Parts: sequence; structure tokens; C-alpha cells
Amino acid sequence: MHSPSDFLLAAKRCELGGLEHLREMVGLVSRIADLVHELQRERGASNVFLGSRGAQFGAERQRIAERAAALEADVRTQFAALDESATAGTCGMRLFNRIAMALAMLEGLALLRQRIAVQQLQPVQVIEAYGEVIGCLLAVVIEAVDSAGDPAISRLLVALFHLMQGKELAGQERALGVVAFSTGHIPREQQTRLLDLIDREERSFAVFMEFAEPCSRQTWLDLNSNAVMLEVERMRRTLVAAHGPLAADAAVTLRWFDQASRRLDAIRDIEQSISDALAALCEARIGEARADLRDQTSLLLKSEKIGPLPAASIAVFMDYPAAGCADASPPVGLLSASGLGPQLGSSVIDLLQAQAQRIQDVSDELAKTRATLNEGKLIERAKGLLMARRGLSEEHAHRLLRQTAMNQNRRLVDIAEATLALIDLIPDTP
Amino acid sequence: MHSPSDFLLAAKRCELGGLEHLREMVGLVSRIADLVHELQRERGASNVFLGSRGAQFGAERQRIAERAAALEADVRTQFAALDESATAGTCGMRLFNRIAMALAMLEGLALLRQRIAVQQLQPVQVIEAYGEVIGCLLAVVIEAVDSAGDPAISRLLVALFHLMQGKELAGQERALGVVAFSTGHIPREQQTRLLDLIDREERSFAVFMEFAEPCSRQTWLDLNSNAVMLEVERMRRTLVAAHGPLAADAAVTLRWFDQASRRLDAIRDIEQSISDALAALCEARIGEARADLRDQTSLLLKSEKIGPLPAASIAVFMDYPAAGCADASPPVGLLSASGLGPQLGSSVIDLLQAQAQRIQDVSDELAKTRATLNEGKLIERAKGLLMARRGLSEEHAHRLLRQTAMNQNRRLVDIAEATLALIDLIPDTP
Repeated sequence: MHSPSDFLLAAKRCELGGLEHLREMVGLVSRIADLVHELQRERGASNVFLGSRGAQFGAERQRIAERAAALEADVRTQFAALDESATAGTCGMRLFNRIAMALAMLEGLALLRQRIAVQQLQPVQVIEAYGEVIGCLLAVVIEAVDSAGDPAISRLLVALFHLMQGKELAGQERALGVVAFSTGHIPREQQTRLLDLIDREERSFAVFMEFAEPCSRQTWLDLNSNAVMLEVERMRRTLVAAHGPLAADAAVTLRWFDQASRRLDAIRDIEQSISDALAALCEARIGEARADLRDQTSLLLKSEKIGPLPAASIAVFMDYPAAGCADASPPVGLLSASGLGPQLGSSVIDLLQAQAQRIQDVSDELAKTRATLNEGKLIERAKGLLMARRGLSEEHAHRLLRQTAMNQNRRLVDIAEATLALIDLIPDTP
Repeated sequence: MHSPSDFLLAAKRCELGGLEHLREMVGLVSRIADLVHELQRERGASNVFLGSRGAQFGAERQRIAERAAALEADVRTQFAALDESATAGTCGMRLFNRIAMALAMLEGLALLRQRIAVQQLQPVQVIEAYGEVIGCLLAVVIEAVDSAGDPAISRLLVALFHLMQGKELAGQERALGVVAFSTGHIPREQQTRLLDLIDREERSFAVFMEFAEPCSRQTWLDLNSNAVMLEVERMRRTLVAAHGPLAADAAVTLRWFDQASRRLDAIRDIEQSISDALAALCEARIGEARADLRDQTSLLLKSEKIGPLPAASIAVFMDYPAAGCADASPPVGLLSASGLGPQLGSSVIDLLQAQAQRIQDVSDELAKTRATLNEGKLIERAKGLLMARRGLSEEHAHRLLRQTAMNQNRRLVDIAEATLALIDLIPDTP
């Protein structure tokens, strides 16, 4: 590579390569979403099974576990097929580390299933165990999302991730409800946990709504005003308002499981339609980038034949960064204005100009999307810090942050940031 | 790649690949620094030449231009040798686009030199033209800095970039002073511009001081309290306090050029020592990463022979993200605590654990460094916006932002951010 044209085309090839990698990531995320959905179902069914002391869902649980194992194999195939060279540097390091962690967690599933089969575990342990596996799978998704370099795709991925996150919280809620209804009582701390889950679900879904495309948003609104959601809300009220034993039996448990599952399945449908939209978007963007690359290549070849244009035609350069600022700075441009500009064909300059502008636009867009992703991370980290330093439960830590934010009329993320900044002021509680 | 160990090692290879790419970038930045220094010298000498109507620095200018051309060839060689596959995606796209732009600007140098030789240009045009070329080269540097995935290297690169930026502003200041002393007067707007340059120099150098290693910081402090700086300050005062003609002649011009050049050369020495430190740091980090990779590979091979350890030994997993948060979340870990953890050797788990922790630490560190880099970019963009929308000069825009920040007792970057957020409220001024 020697000339400006060479590097112009190299930049375009990088964009294309990035999009192709992104398509691979989108495929991976879809397979993970499939697996996560089945694991959530397995968790719920396992809890009905344990709650009924093995009377219900014995065969059902088996079938779901087999489907989950098949989907796990698909995910493993996708992992194995990843191109190491396409994910160099920090991004690759993070992604592969998360995958290593997720694979390590998946190795534990067989033993988990055995113990559930012989009813050796408490339902609450089952909830935690599946939650850990799914958490590690979602951690892979977040790395895939973070590496997206295309604003439209990045927005949809952020929407999808938050939908998956909210759905997992809803899955935990379903499992918690199954335990409560099947045992006929819900301890105080599980009520708090339920409220916390609902609150976090809503936060995740709010981000989803911010970034999703109109069609999914409408489906979501419909879903939230239908009969299923109404019944889920009624049963939620029963759970959080209970003092003492719940007037519940196997039928009520199944009813809750059924309605909560319908809700999860409906969310799953939205997930799939976003996945499909993402796949289509990737194809479209790759098609565009390929066409651009083809057009630019032939244009640049042609312009090299024509030879350099008069220097006066390069005033467009003036929009480019000037001395001492080196980033998206305003016109100064005497090198061009004084007719001293580069001796290049106008097509090269047009392309350079257009590409620089597009890169700036893309960066601005991405920065906005990433800010949202980072806010979520900040809140989780502040929560983790409070849990580690002050020995709080996740629910308690979350409530503390939220309460502080409300009292001070500030955003949750600001309080989280302040918490992290004051890390050294928070003493360890043994 | 199939097992957690495979991905653990892949993550390590990514880190190593990232470091090797970074070494290449550091080499590129060093060559760019060499070229920029020579171009700055050429600009200064050209202005002495033009200011003396060709009486002084004719041969000198020629020699410098030849050296600059040789250094330009070195930079071009580095550009040509870049491995396209090592800079995939958005990073590569941005880098190659900047390089294309820089190469396009360099093409204009020959014509610029011709026009200077026949004294067809005003000194102020020369300042702008070289400023544009150097600005484009610095824009390449900022992309190299932005792609750094190692905190220590990233900090040094940020220090180096701001030193280069400050030095370029100092170079413009030198050229401006040459014009003033050699013409015997300095118009009001050039005085304002000088003050603005000094202010921006100080801002750049402050960031440099924040991120540089102690040795360079000390050299900088020494430099700022020596006799050269004292004389530069005295001559600066003459320039900014002047009402009407300056009591200046060819000797005074040369004296200013000489002292200002000594200052630039001293800054250049610091630049070079940071470049050397960076090269050494890259080698050291690559050596460490290679040794790690070797150790981990043999450790994992050994542990596979030993076979799985008892599940109880994997409690370390508990520090890993749990369900629903997917990022650096606190211990929940029933899958492990309940003895259901992955059936892996303890060495794999130790490594996974250590790597996850290190990745988190690295990300935290990088986030801090990048925040500084982004603040600079935000300020430049807010300035650009004011210039475009309100038709202000760069100096004026800068002063407006700074004044607003001082009046409101807020940081410059906050005002810049607010300006960008209110973009639609600022009307276009034709």
C-alpha cells in the first residue's frame, strides 16, 4: 500500500471485514439466545419437578434437557468456528476469556441435571446454578455487542442484549414464583428479591425500548397490555402481598408457570424477530460495503488514468482536522485554499472527504449507544462493590443505590459512578 | 478450539497479537514524530527566509527540506509495511482513512516548497499550510494511541501525543513570532492568536504531565525553569504587549527563532525519550505475554494429564458475573458452592480467574486514560461547532468556551459537552 487510494480502499476493506465479523457475532448471539431460552425453560421445569417432589414434569424436564443439550452443541460449534484472527487485540482477549468461562460453566450442567433428577437440590440452588450458567452466556453476548462498529447494528444488538437480560430476570422471577406457589409460602427476603427482579426487569426493558426498532417496540407494548400480563401481574401481587402461607396448590403453581412461560415465550418471539432483523441488516450492510468497495476501486482506477486534477478543485479538504487539534476540527485549509493542495484526482478527494465524514458520524452514533451499555456496566459494578465491601445482598445493594438516587433526585448511573469514585471511603465489612 | 483451555490460550494469543500490533504503532508514531519535527523546523526556516526576503536561511531551508523528504520516505515505508489484517474493523478503518488523508497532504509539499523558494507566498500562508500537513500526521498518531489495549503503554502514548500536540502549537508560536519580529509589527488578531496558542500549549502540556513517567516530568520541569524559557517568556511579552511597531531587526528575529527552536529541540528530546521508553515497554510486555503463553500452555497440558480435580476446588469461580448482569458482578456461585462447578483442573480455573480479573483491571485503567483523550476530542469538536455555526475564528471559539467555563466555575470539557448537546439551539450564522 503506497498511495492515498490504496489506504482509502484498505479502510473500506477493514469496514467490510468488520461487518463480516459482526455477522458472525450476530449468528453467535442468536444461537446463545436459543440455548439460554431452553436453559430458562429447563430451570422452570426443574423447579416444578422439585416442588412437586418428582410428581410433575419428570418426562418434560428430560425432553427440555435434551433439547438444551442439542442447542448447547450448536453454540459450541459456533464457538469452535470463530476466526481467531478476526478478533485480534483487546476485543478478542475479552471475548475468548468470556467464552472460556462460559464453556467451563457448561461443563457443570451434566452434574447439575443428575442431582436434580435424584432430587438432591433445593429449588433455590437450582435457580442460582442456572442463573450462573446463563450469566456467563450473557457475558459472551455483551462482548459481541461491545465490538460492533456499525451504529444501526450496534443499536439493535444493545436492544437485543437488554431484552435477553430482562428476559433472564423474568425467568428468575418465574422460577422464584414456582418455588413460592409450590411450597405454599414465600419468605420475606424472597418477596424483596421478587420486587428487585421486577424493578431490574423494567430497567432492562426500558433500555430495550430505547434502542429497538418500531416493530419490536409495538409488539412489546401489545405484550404488556394483554391478558397474560394481566394475570402475571395479579399473581405477582399475591406473591408480594402475602403475609404467612399462600393459598396455593399444584394447579396454581402450574397456572403461574404457564402464564409466566407464555410471557417469556412472547419475549422470545421478539428476541427472534430482532435476531432476524440483525441478520438481514448485516447482509444489507455487507452488500453495501462490497458494492462501495467495487465502485471505489473502479473509480480510483479510472481517476488514475485521467491523472491529477487542478489543485483548485480540492477545497473540500478544508473540512479536515487542522494543526494542533487532530480531531474533527474546522476548516483552516490554506494548503488547499492557496492552491497548494494535494495533486490528486477529485474522485480520490471526494471519497476521502465522504469517508472521513462518515467515520465521524459513525463514531458519534456508536458513542451514544456505548454510553448506554456502559451505564449498565457501571451500575452492576457499583452494586458488586457494595456487596463485596459492605456484605450486602444483590437486592439490598440495588435498593440502596436506587434509594440514594431517588432521594438526591439524581440518575442511578450518577450514583453508581460516585460510588465507584469513592471506593476507598467504603470500608470492608467482614 | 473446543475446550475452556483452548479459549484461554486464544485470549492470551489475542493479547500478544495486540501488543505486537502496538509495537508496530509505536514505531510508526516515532517516525511520524521525527518527520513532524523536521517539518516544524522547515516551517520556521521558511518564515525566516520569507521574512528576510530571501536574504537568510536559503541554503538552510534547502537542507532541512531534504532531511524532511528523507524522513517522509521513512514514514511512507512504515505506512506501506502496515499489516492490514492486524487492524481489522473500525480501528483499521479509522487508521487507514487518516493515513490516506495524511498521504494526500504530503503530496502537496513539493508544490509548497517550490512556491516558498520563489517567494510567492505570505508567511501566514506558510504557517497554515505546514500546520495542515502536521495536523493530518497528528491525526494518524491519535488513531494509533486510541487503539492501545495496554494501560501502561496507553498512558505513555497519551503523554506522547499531548507532548507532540503542545510542541506543534509551540511550533506555530515560533513561526508567528518570526513573522512579527521580521516584519516589525504584530496585528491585534495575531496577538490574540499568540495568547490562544500559549493557552492551548499549556493545556496540552498539562495532560502530558498527568500521564508521563516521572523522568520525563522532571525533564519538563527543568526545561521550564531554564534560561531559554526565560528568554522565550520575555520575547513573548514583547509580542503580546506591543502597540504599534516592534523595535525589531534581523538579529532579534534570529534570536527569537534560535531560543524558540532550542525550546522545541528540548521538547523533542523528551519526545524521543518517551518513544524509547515506549519501545522498551512494548518489548517487555511482549516478552511477558510470550512467557505467560508458554507457561500457561505447559500448565494446561499438564493439568489435562492429571484430569479433573474435585469440584470443591473451584470456589474461585464465585467472583464471576452472575445471571442478569453479565459484567463484573459479585459472588453468587451456587453452581460452584453447591459442588456443581465445572469439572476442570484447578490450574484452568486459576488461570480463568486471574485472566478475568486482569481484564477487568486493564479495562478500568484504559477507561481512565481514554477519558482524557476523549475530553480533548470533545473540546476540539465543540470549538469546531462554534466556528462552523457562529462563524468564529479558532481563537475566538476557544476563548468563548474557556470564558464560559471560568464564569460558571465548571470544567472546560463540561462546557464543551453542553455545547455539543445544545447543537440544535445554536443557529447558523451565514
